Amino acid sequence: MKVSFEELQAQFERVLLKLNFAAEKAALCARIFAENSRDGVYSHGLNRFPVFVQMVRDGLIAVDAEPERVAQNGVTEQWDGHLAPGMYTATKAMERAIALAKENGMGCVAVRNTNHWMRAGTYGWQAADAGCIGICSTNTIANMPPWGGTDPRLGNNPLVIAIPRKEGHIVLDMAMSQFSYGKLQEYELKGKELPVAGGYDEHGQLTIDPTQIRKTKRTLPIGFWKGSGLSLVLDVLVASLSDGRTTGEITVTGSEAGVSQLFLCINANHIDESISGRIIQYTKSSGLLDGEGEIRYPGESSLATRRRNAEGGIPVNEHIWQQVLAL
Amino acid sequence: MKVSFEELQAQFERVLLKLNFAAEKAALCARIFAENSRDGVYSHGLNRFPVFVQMVRDGLIAVDAEPERVAQNGVTEQWDGHLAPGMYTATKAMERAIALAKENGMGCVAVRNTNHWMRAGTYGWQAADAGCIGICSTNTIANMPPWGGTDPRLGNNPLVIAIPRKEGHIVLDMAMSQFSYGKLQEYELKGKELPVAGGYDEHGQLTIDPTQIRKTKRTLPIGFWKGSGLSLVLDVLVASLSDGRTTGEITVTGSEAGVSQLFLCINANHIDESISGRIIQYTKSSGLLDGEGEIRYPGESSLATRRRNAEGGIPVNEHIWQQVLAL
Repeated sequence: MKVSFEELQAQFERVLLKLNFAAEKAALCARIFAENSRDGVYSHGLNRFPVFVQMVRDGLIAVDAEPERVAQNGVTEQWDGHLAPGMYTATKAMERAIALAKENGMGCVAVRNTNHWMRAGTYGWQAADAGCIGICSTNTIANMPPWGGTDPRLGNNPLVIAIPRKEGHIVLDMAMSQFSYGKLQEYELKGKELPVAGGYDEHGQLTIDPTQIRKTKRTLPIGFWKGSGLSLVLDVLVASLSDGRTTGEITVTGSEAGVSQLFLCINANHIDESISGRIIQYTKSSGLLDGEGEIRYPGESSLATRRRNAEGGIPVNEHIWQQVLAL
Repeated sequence: MKVSFEELQAQFERVLLKLNFAAEKAALCARIFAENSRDGVYSHGLNRFPVFVQMVRDGLIAVDAEPERVAQNGVTEQWDGHLAPGMYTATKAMERAIALAKENGMGCVAVRNTNHWMRAGTYGWQAADAGCIGICSTNTIANMPPWGGTDPRLGNNPLVIAIPRKEGHIVLDMAMSQFSYGKLQEYELKGKELPVAGGYDEHGQLTIDPTQIRKTKRTLPIGFWKGSGLSLVLDVLVASLSDGRTTGEITVTGSEAGVSQLFLCINANHIDESISGRIIQYTKSSGLLDGEGEIRYPGESSLATRRRNAEGGIPVNEHIWQQVLAL
C-alpha cells in the first residue's frame, strides 16, 4: 500500500503533538520521519517511528529540552543537547554550522548529550540544500568488534560527506560496518545470503550468512582494519570535540541515548559544479561488470527513490502504518 | 643494513641541493624522506627517492616554484602549487591551516597544481604535533575501478585524520583500495597470498592472489561500494575546493603530477585527552582473535617503528641505499 508524503507527515505530527512535543519540534521531527520514509530509508522512517514513540514514553528523550551552546572558539562551537529529540538538535546544529560557514567560510558544531538523529544523511542533504559542503558523524552503542578482536567495542559511527550540485547533491552516508544489523535482518527475513562477506561465523570464518553473523555479533568493519580504525577515530572526534560520551560510555548505559555528534560545514558558493559533474561522468565511463548494471554516485539512488515516491506515493508496511494510525 | 636518521637525511639533502633545490626546500624534503623511512614507510621514503629524483630530472617537479594563495574566504584559502615539490607545498599548506585554526578555531587550505606529497600521514603528524586535529586528502591517478565497473576510474585518494595525544597521536592514514599496488607487489615478491581478498581475478572472482590482481588491474575498494563512494567524494572535495585537476584529468596526462589536495585543521587545545585514552582502552579491552595478537589504535604501529628505528638505526635496502649514495 502507498501513502502520500503529506499523510505520513500529518500522522507523525499528530502523534508527536499528543506526546507533548511543542509545535515546532513536532513539525520538524514529523517532516524528517516522512522524508526518510520517502527516500526509502524505512529503518529510520516509518518503521522506526513506533520505537521512537516508545523511547519518548520511556523518558529517554527530553521532549521539552532545548540544546544549549556551552563554549565557542572562533568558528567552532560546543553544544549540550540536554537529551532533546536528536533530529531537532541535529537540525539546529547543522543550521548553525551552515550560518558559521556562510559568514566565515567554515563552521563546526560539536554536540554532547544528544539523541539518535535517525538517518545520518538527513543533515548532509540539509547542508547541501543550503549550498554548503557538509560533513557529520555520530557515535553509537558498541556493535562491532575492533580488528583483531572478538567483542563489540566500536560503534557503527556513520560518516556523512555531502557536496551541493544543482542536478542532485552528492551525499555519502556510510556506516562503518559492511552491513548494519537492520540490513542483516532484512536479508535474513528474505532468506537471502549477503552479496559479500559481512562478518564471522562461530568458527571464526568470514561468512555471507546473515543469521550466523547475528548470532556471533561479529560484524565486519568496511575494509577490515581500515574501517575499524576509522570508527575509532570518528568516536574520538565526536566525543573529544563535544566533551561528550564515548561509544564505551554509551554502551554501559544499556541504551543508545546521550550520544556525541559533529557537524562541519564549508561554504561552497564559489565552487565550480562542472568539476563534480566531470568526476561523475568519468567514473560512469568505466566498462560495466558483466556488461550490465549501473555505476552510481553517492546519493543518486536516494534521489531516484525520492522522485519516484514523491510522484507515485510512498510504499509502506501496512501493519506498521496501522500501528501508527492507532497511536 | 642499518643507517642512522641523520645519515639518511644528510644524503637526501646532498642530492637535492645538487638538483638545485633551495636550502629550505632541500632540508624540508630530505627530512620528510628520512622520517618516512624511519617510520617504516619505505615506499614513500628511501625506496621512492630515486623515482623522485627522476621526476625532478624529467621536469615534472618545478624545483624553483613557490605555492601561491589565489583566493580566501574567511578561514578557508585556495592555493596554486605551481608544481613545486609536493612535500614542500603540503607542509606549507598544513602550516597555514594550523595557523588559521589557532586563530579562528578552524582553518582550511585547498591546493591545486601540486605534486605527490609522498606519505599522506606526514601532514597528519604535523597537525597533531602542533596541537591540532588535522584532516587531509589528495587525489591520485586512476588506479581502481568504481563499484559495478571494470576499468580504473577512481584514485586511491588517501584520507588522513589525526588527533593529538601526549602519549602518541592517533593518526589514521587510509588509502581507498584494500591494498595499494606497492603492497600487492610486496606480497608478490615474497610469494605470499593476501590476508583478505584484494581484488578480482580474470574470471571476475574475488581473489587473494596479488599477481592476478596486478594483471587485471581490478583492485578492490575498502568496503566494496562504500570505499568506491568515498574515493569519488574525496576527489570531488579536493578538486572542487582547490579548483584543480580531477583524478580523470590527472590520468589523461599519463603522470601523477598537478594533483589537488586539501588540508583542514581544528584547534584541539581545549580537548580533554583522557577521552581518547578511554576510547583506546575500551577498544583494547576486547577479547583477542584466537586469544593472540594485538588490537592497535591508528598510528600506534608507526610510533613503535619510529621509536625502534630512532634507537637502533633504520634498516635499509642496501641496493637502493647504494643507488642514493651514488646520485
